Amino acid sequence: MEKLLRAEERIDNLNVKDLRIIQNPKGFCFGIDAVLLANFVEVKKNSKVVDLGTGTGIIPLLLAGKSRSSHITGLEIQEEVADMAKRSVELNQLQQRIHILNIDLKDAEKNIPINAYDVVTSNPPYMHSEGLINPEDRKAISRHEIKCNLEDIIRIASRLLKHHGRFFMVHRPQRLVDIMVLCRKYKLEPKRLQFIHPTSGKKPNLLLIDCKKAANPELKILDPLIVYDDAGKYTENLIEVYNKTSIEEGSGLIG
Amino acid sequence: MEKLLRAEERIDNLNVKDLRIIQNPKGFCFGIDAVLLANFVEVKKNSKVVDLGTGTGIIPLLLAGKSRSSHITGLEIQEEVADMAKRSVELNQLQQRIHILNIDLKDAEKNIPINAYDVVTSNPPYMHSEGLINPEDRKAISRHEIKCNLEDIIRIASRLLKHHGRFFMVHRPQRLVDIMVLCRKYKLEPKRLQFIHPTSGKKPNLLLIDCKKAANPELKILDPLIVYDDAGKYTENLIEVYNKTSIEEGSGLIG
Repeated sequence: MEKLLRAEERIDNLNVKDLRIIQNPKGFCFGIDAVLLANFVEVKKNSKVVDLGTGTGIIPLLLAGKSRSSHITGLEIQEEVADMAKRSVELNQLQQRIHILNIDLKDAEKNIPINAYDVVTSNPPYMHSEGLINPEDRKAISRHEIKCNLEDIIRIASRLLKHHGRFFMVHRPQRLVDIMVLCRKYKLEPKRLQFIHPTSGKKPNLLLIDCKKAANPELKILDPLIVYDDAGKYTENLIEVYNKTSIEEGSGLIG
Repeated sequence: MEKLLRAEERIDNLNVKDLRIIQNPKGFCFGIDAVLLANFVEVKKNSKVVDLGTGTGIIPLLLAGKSRSSHITGLEIQEEVADMAKRSVELNQLQQRIHILNIDLKDAEKNIPINAYDVVTSNPPYMHSEGLINPEDRKAISRHEIKCNLEDIIRIASRLLKHHGRFFMVHRPQRLVDIMVLCRKYKLEPKRLQFIHPTSGKKPNLLLIDCKKAANPELKILDPLIVYDDAGKYTENLIEVYNKTSIEEGSGLIG
C-alpha cells in the first residue's frame, strides 16, 4: 500500500464500505460540497456515469460506495491530481468500476462516447477567473474557471448525456442565473433545485441542481438543507445526509 | 363615499396612512403576494413607476403609502376591475399621484412612453393557461396566463424601463427557470432574489425578484422570509414586513 502514497500525501477514510481516498493537505481536499453532491445524485445499477473535473476522485468513489454502477468515469485535467485519483481507485480495488482519465474535459468527445451516459456529475470551479491568480496553482485550478468555465461544463454534460439523461451539479447561488440560462441553452432542463443554508433564516451558500436532458420545463425546489441548528450543532437533516453517504461525522468536512 | 361603491363591493382598510381599497369578495381580492411585493419594491421620491396588471390597484396604493412618488401608473385590462381601482384612487384622493389606465399591457407602448420608467412592478398571473378555464372569469384572468404570459410581462417591463431602471416581480418558484431565462433575454438582469417559505425547513412557495435593466450579472440571494414559526404564529420578520407596509396584522391576508 505504501507504494501508492507520494510525499505529503495521506490516506483518509471515507467510512463508506471501508473506502479510502488519497489526498494532499497542501493541495485541494474535498469538502462538504462533494459529499452533498454525491448524496443528491441518483445512480441506478446500470447507470453509466461520468464526473467532470473529478479532482482526487471523491465523487466516483462515493458513487461507487452508494450505488452498484460499474461504469463510473472521472475526467481530470491535472496530471498529478488525476494520478492521485487513479491510486485511490487502486487502493480501493475499484479498477473494474471506476476509470480515471487524465484529459481536459473540453476534449471529452475525443476520448469517450457522446449521447451515451445516464448521469453526468460535476463539482466545478465556482469562481470567475480574474487577475492575480497563478494559473499553475493546483488549488486555483480547482476553484477558479481557469481551464474551463461553466458553459464548457454544461455544454459537455449535455453532449455526453443520453436523451433524458441527468446532470447533477453543486455550485454557488450567485451563479444561479448563469446556470439556468446555460442549462436551458444546452437542453438540460432544471428539474430539482435544493439550496444549502448555513443556518435557518440565513441565505444559502450552496445549491444542488438536477437537470434532465430534453425534458419539459417543470422545476421543483426542494426543502432547503440547513447545516447548523440554532445551537451551532449539525442539524438532523445534515447528519442524515452524512450517514447516507457514510462520511464520518466530525470529519471536519463542514467548514 | 357611497357613490363610489357598486353592488357586492366593500371597502377595506389598508392601515397605511388611512388608505382604503375597494374590493369585491366575489372577485379577486389582493393577498400576501401584493403586500410582500410592495414591501420589496424600492421607490424614490422622484421615481416614475408603472404596475403591470394592477388589478384593484393594491400595488399603486401601497407604493403611494410607502413612498413620495407622485408618478405611479397602473395598467389593468379588465374594465370592471380597472374601474374599481380608479374609484379606490378617488376614495383616497390620490388622483394626483396614481393613474389607472384600462388598457391591455401588451399595448402599453401605444399609451405610455418607453425607456421612461424607473420602476416597473408586477404581480402577474402565475399559472399557465391550460384547458377548462373560463376565459371570461375575472379570477381566472388574474390567476392564469389568459390575456398575457410571463414573456409579455418581462418584455414590456424592459421596454418601459429606463437604462438601469428596476423591475420587481412576485411569482412562484416553479417558474424560476422561465423567469431567469426571459429576464436575461430582455436585458433585465436578476440582482436580488428572495424566497418566501411557509415555515422554516419547508420549500418556498413564493419568490420576489429585483432585476436591473442592462446591468452586469451578479445575483444576491437574500435571507429567506419565513411566514410561520414552529408554533404556527407569524414570524417576527413577517410581522415586520406587515408593519413596514402597515397592513393590519390578522387581516386574513396570509393564506
